[in-house]
Amino acid sequence: MAVRTARRAIVRLPAGAAGVPVGDDLAVEAPLVVGLDGTTVATLMRTPGHDLELVAGWLVVESGVRRASDIATLAQCRADDTDRVDIALQPQVRPPRPRAYLTSASCGVCSTDLLDMSLLREAPAWPPGWTVPRAVLAALPAQMRAAQRVFDRSGAVHAAALAGADGTMFAVHEDVGRHNAVDKVIGRALLDDRLPASGHLLVVSGRVSFEIVQKAVAAGVAGIVAVSAPTSLAVDLAREFGLLLAGMVREDRMNLYAGAELVR
Amino acid sequence: MAVRTARRAIVRLPAGAAGVPVGDDLAVEAPLVVGLDGTTVATLMRTPGHDLELVAGWLVVESGVRRASDIATLAQCRADDTDRVDIALQPQVRPPRPRAYLTSASCGVCSTDLLDMSLLREAPAWPPGWTVPRAVLAALPAQMRAAQRVFDRSGAVHAAALAGADGTMFAVHEDVGRHNAVDKVIGRALLDDRLPASGHLLVVSGRVSFEIVQKAVAAGVAGIVAVSAPTSLAVDLAREFGLLLAGMVREDRMNLYAGAELVR
Repeated sequence: MAVRTARRAIVRLPAGAAGVPVGDDLAVEAPLVVGLDGTTVATLMRTPGHDLELVAGWLVVESGVRRASDIATLAQCRADDTDRVDIALQPQVRPPRPRAYLTSASCGVCSTDLLDMSLLREAPAWPPGWTVPRAVLAALPAQMRAAQRVFDRSGAVHAAALAGADGTMFAVHEDVGRHNAVDKVIGRALLDDRLPASGHLLVVSGRVSFEIVQKAVAAGVAGIVAVSAPTSLAVDLAREFGLLLAGMVREDRMNLYAGAELVR
Repeated sequence: MAVRTARRAIVRLPAGAAGVPVGDDLAVEAPLVVGLDGTTVATLMRTPGHDLELVAGWLVVESGVRRASDIATLAQCRADDTDRVDIALQPQVRPPRPRAYLTSASCGVCSTDLLDMSLLREAPAWPPGWTVPRAVLAALPAQMRAAQRVFDRSGAVHAAALAGADGTMFAVHEDVGRHNAVDKVIGRALLDDRLPASGHLLVVSGRVSFEIVQKAVAAGVAGIVAVSAPTSLAVDLAREFGLLLAGMVREDRMNLYAGAELVR
């Protein structure tokens, strides 16, 4: 049975009350390598479980597979702490084009050689003694929402923003893609030569997955403030890189998944 | 000014009442080609607007860009109905690895040569005379939620399911990724040799973007039932391929974005 949730010790801040340490169940996110003829054709970040179904379904679009017999081999293994599914296709099936995978060196958290974050961090995420008031964190999602133009009309877009520890917000951007919204905000900061954005907070409207933390570390921010929940890998990486990670921020309630000591 | 929402004529079904034709503003989703030295290195599906920021931010992780001066050229153009951003990087910057882009032939809806769906459809999406009761559509999200195991604990995962027009549900899967959950469901159907799944409905917990419709067409389903809203491109593609598309399904309320005539 694949492990699909993982418990982490976090700090819960109920409305109008002090923080309470609790255990919280988080969705697991982990890499799955798809191999074809000895080559890696994709690394999918996924919740473990039903990995054969995942790869079979991925092949429907990527390779035009339409029946089970189009797939000659579909074999799962775990080697060197990495989950793999190796495929072989019948000769008439067009193989999937290789997808750029995430990176190629080692990662302390996931114990694989897939998720290298070590080159991302160039500067400390915050100046010495940096903290952020709880009230600032609590207000950021609503501030961002107020600055969104598309959401109110369509109800289908994500937003991201960059804010200082005093709550000053700049670079609010929207996109149908969570990652795109974050890329737009970081890109604005880059073009203004404001990277690394140490002492700043990345605000996101959705969930926090591995890639969002990766982008936050690359941008050099001090933390992430999210309306929804993080994955377990996101929490582990935030801790490894010393980031503040606040999630499920709803009015005055929130969970502190990492860096609770940075909140005053 | 980039067009970030687009209005479509849809049918709104209020709770306990008959359908009303209304105009609805949807988030726009469209391809952006990223070119480097005359080669396409990525095609990003994004909401138009701040495309330079998007590509600059994408380069922060993909190429390790850290300051604006790392980018020698960042030029936007629109040619042959396609949005492009062409980049040139300083010699010391590692170029991004090419990303598999979506496809390579023509698409009637988006008028580009990027989004080929023409090879996906192999069989009619439904048998002659096929319809689905409104009550079945309304009940599917709650049915799927009841079958989810991970969501209740973590609050951070998406789900997808395949259901018959009588509401019989099989293959419910969860994942932190929306696309992965759909891939798992379609993969299960493939491995059971149930593709094309004509006359069946793909149920998704999140929003409906281009890629979800692409997967639905490849699986040969009759329609998509979503808890959230679709993008304008998703609606246009659903119409082009004759799919039923119901969204914002909350208890007895829902919007019919395409194929309203299939609902009885």
